[in-house]
Amino acid sequence: MSQVISDFYAVIPAGGIGSRLWPLSRADAPKFLHDLTGSGHSLLRDTWDRLEPLAGSERIAVVTGRAHRAAVEAQLPGVPDRNVFLESEPRDSTAAIGLAAAVLVRREPEVIIGSFAADHVIRVPHLFQWAVQQAVAVARQGYICTIGIQPSEPSIGFGYIKKADELLVDGAPEAATVERFVEKPDLETARTYFADRSYLWNAGMFISRADVLLAEIEANNPELHAGLMELAEAWDDRDRRGPVVDRVWPGLTKIAIDYSVAEPAAEKGKLAVIPGHFDWDDVGDFASLAKLNSHGRKNDLAILGGNARILSDASSGIVVSQTSRVISLIGVQDIVVVDTPDALLVTTSEHAQRVKGVVDALKLGGRGDVL
Amino acid sequence: MSQVISDFYAVIPAGGIGSRLWPLSRADAPKFLHDLTGSGHSLLRDTWDRLEPLAGSERIAVVTGRAHRAAVEAQLPGVPDRNVFLESEPRDSTAAIGLAAAVLVRREPEVIIGSFAADHVIRVPHLFQWAVQQAVAVARQGYICTIGIQPSEPSIGFGYIKKADELLVDGAPEAATVERFVEKPDLETARTYFADRSYLWNAGMFISRADVLLAEIEANNPELHAGLMELAEAWDDRDRRGPVVDRVWPGLTKIAIDYSVAEPAAEKGKLAVIPGHFDWDDVGDFASLAKLNSHGRKNDLAILGGNARILSDASSGIVVSQTSRVISLIGVQDIVVVDTPDALLVTTSEHAQRVKGVVDALKLGGRGDVL
Repeated sequence: MSQVISDFYAVIPAGGIGSRLWPLSRADAPKFLHDLTGSGHSLLRDTWDRLEPLAGSERIAVVTGRAHRAAVEAQLPGVPDRNVFLESEPRDSTAAIGLAAAVLVRREPEVIIGSFAADHVIRVPHLFQWAVQQAVAVARQGYICTIGIQPSEPSIGFGYIKKADELLVDGAPEAATVERFVEKPDLETARTYFADRSYLWNAGMFISRADVLLAEIEANNPELHAGLMELAEAWDDRDRRGPVVDRVWPGLTKIAIDYSVAEPAAEKGKLAVIPGHFDWDDVGDFASLAKLNSHGRKNDLAILGGNARILSDASSGIVVSQTSRVISLIGVQDIVVVDTPDALLVTTSEHAQRVKGVVDALKLGGRGDVL
Repeated sequence: MSQVISDFYAVIPAGGIGSRLWPLSRADAPKFLHDLTGSGHSLLRDTWDRLEPLAGSERIAVVTGRAHRAAVEAQLPGVPDRNVFLESEPRDSTAAIGLAAAVLVRREPEVIIGSFAADHVIRVPHLFQWAVQQAVAVARQGYICTIGIQPSEPSIGFGYIKKADELLVDGAPEAATVERFVEKPDLETARTYFADRSYLWNAGMFISRADVLLAEIEANNPELHAGLMELAEAWDDRDRRGPVVDRVWPGLTKIAIDYSVAEPAAEKGKLAVIPGHFDWDDVGDFASLAKLNSHGRKNDLAILGGNARILSDASSGIVVSQTSRVISLIGVQDIVVVDTPDALLVTTSEHAQRVKGVVDALKLGGRGDVL
């Protein structure tokens, strides 16, 4: 167990439905509320459990939609009420993380915050924690620090971070500056990145002083920054919070923190990176979920779901079962079967990315009831 | 509409679960009770409707399991009570058809019976009826007559009947004698049969005088014949029927009528055949069901089930839906999805024959509740 870091606050943005995991992931049961690893815990809970040794249970904030408040509090019985930040509607990651930063910096001017998505899977928590400890040491020097995952294969599913020079920071032997971010590459490029070893996967984890983060938002998106300040000023006043949120929140610029903070900071040489040597996945689609759950299973058929009663004859892929039905698969390869009470999906790993298209079609077709 | 044939009685053996159509076909809802063509009627009802113009509604008998009595009578509200023959357990087709023959011949010594499975699909009923009319004319001459389907492709899924010499019978211009029966061939052999045109599919339809059929059973299976006689003698006496059935029926030899009657008759030159020029299928598995239902459908995805709400993106095959769930298929080819309230099957046309193996595994696994 790591030592709690006294000036550190963890922020968990718990938003995003995960459309490519429909019909498992739904508007009222988004990805972060599911157990996608068979651990017995939701991804959100696993995220909390990884952060708790670093921040302590009193210093983990969750930013989520109003509709998910009850589910989040049920998953995280230890979360203090004042650390649950409710969005009236999704305004992307800069607004979510920026709000937490703006509120926390008023409570504690020199606080270092780290933001970690609620719906990622990480194996070997102590390697994650070691990376965060280094990142906090770097953040204390005024850098914005990210954790880039050392690739385990030439993935075309993630963006990359190109490491540059070594940074000499006490307590952070692996720190380096960031040369640039690159978008998801084609396979050939991914292979050169993989061989190079200085390209890391962008896992969207950012650790910095809250005031440094806010200054970067202010430099690039001053209106958004002003809105966040207005929200923060009223936040801890129960009577004022509601009206200010209703007035200010819906007008905030929607922009990912990668564009509002990370890339501009990288250009200015203010972004650092710690390589993460742990298994990490954002479980973006069912192909990824199948891979995550197939290790060591007979015939490589991964099964997710407590009540699943599966008969498989020479089949591979993944079955996600949320019903008690008998499910029989015969001779289907790399199949994806997601069995829920009101919707059934059948596809293959190869086509897993196209699930979002189905969700769009259902929306257009007025079938919001199953989304 | 054909003229009713006054000396003709139609017999519909309605037995067999159709294991290769699980989980659509079940012990308590066997294949013949399902609408497999989207006609709005069960296969049993369609069979009845094809035969009614030939025999009249008072002269169609159904041989079925005791458990299916209510369902059969619901499907066939016009069937007279005395024409429903209930089996206490399945004893194969010679017992089923032989019982009907033995009972009917006592009621009407010169009756001609034709037996037609309850779970086959036939398009263009008037061509079927024309074949039966010819077969009855041949049967009046003392032959056992079958209807062999003129193949529409070199199928390896059916047995074949090799036509021999033309038979000169009034009212049956296409009648011929049968040289021999052949089992399901390999593809190369099937191609030579298909090119030859004198090989017809064995559809298991037999038309003959009841006394001629019984004499053939007696010659080849005298004990079985004796049992049928004993049953028939007591059948129309309400008080005696039950005890005799309980005593005699379970001991009857299980043998298909192909082996007890048709093949021996063919060897003696007593079997005739009328070629059938109509579309026919025994819908033996989901590959066959897919083919039957895919004509002219978008992307060749056949859909069976009134409440089906299907979203298909570049998929082909068949979906059978018995629930109101949204079913979404993405990029799956020749897929078979059968969605029922308590069981789900996912396979491909290629593996459709292996469904029976799943049923066997469920039996062994003590999951009779879903069979």
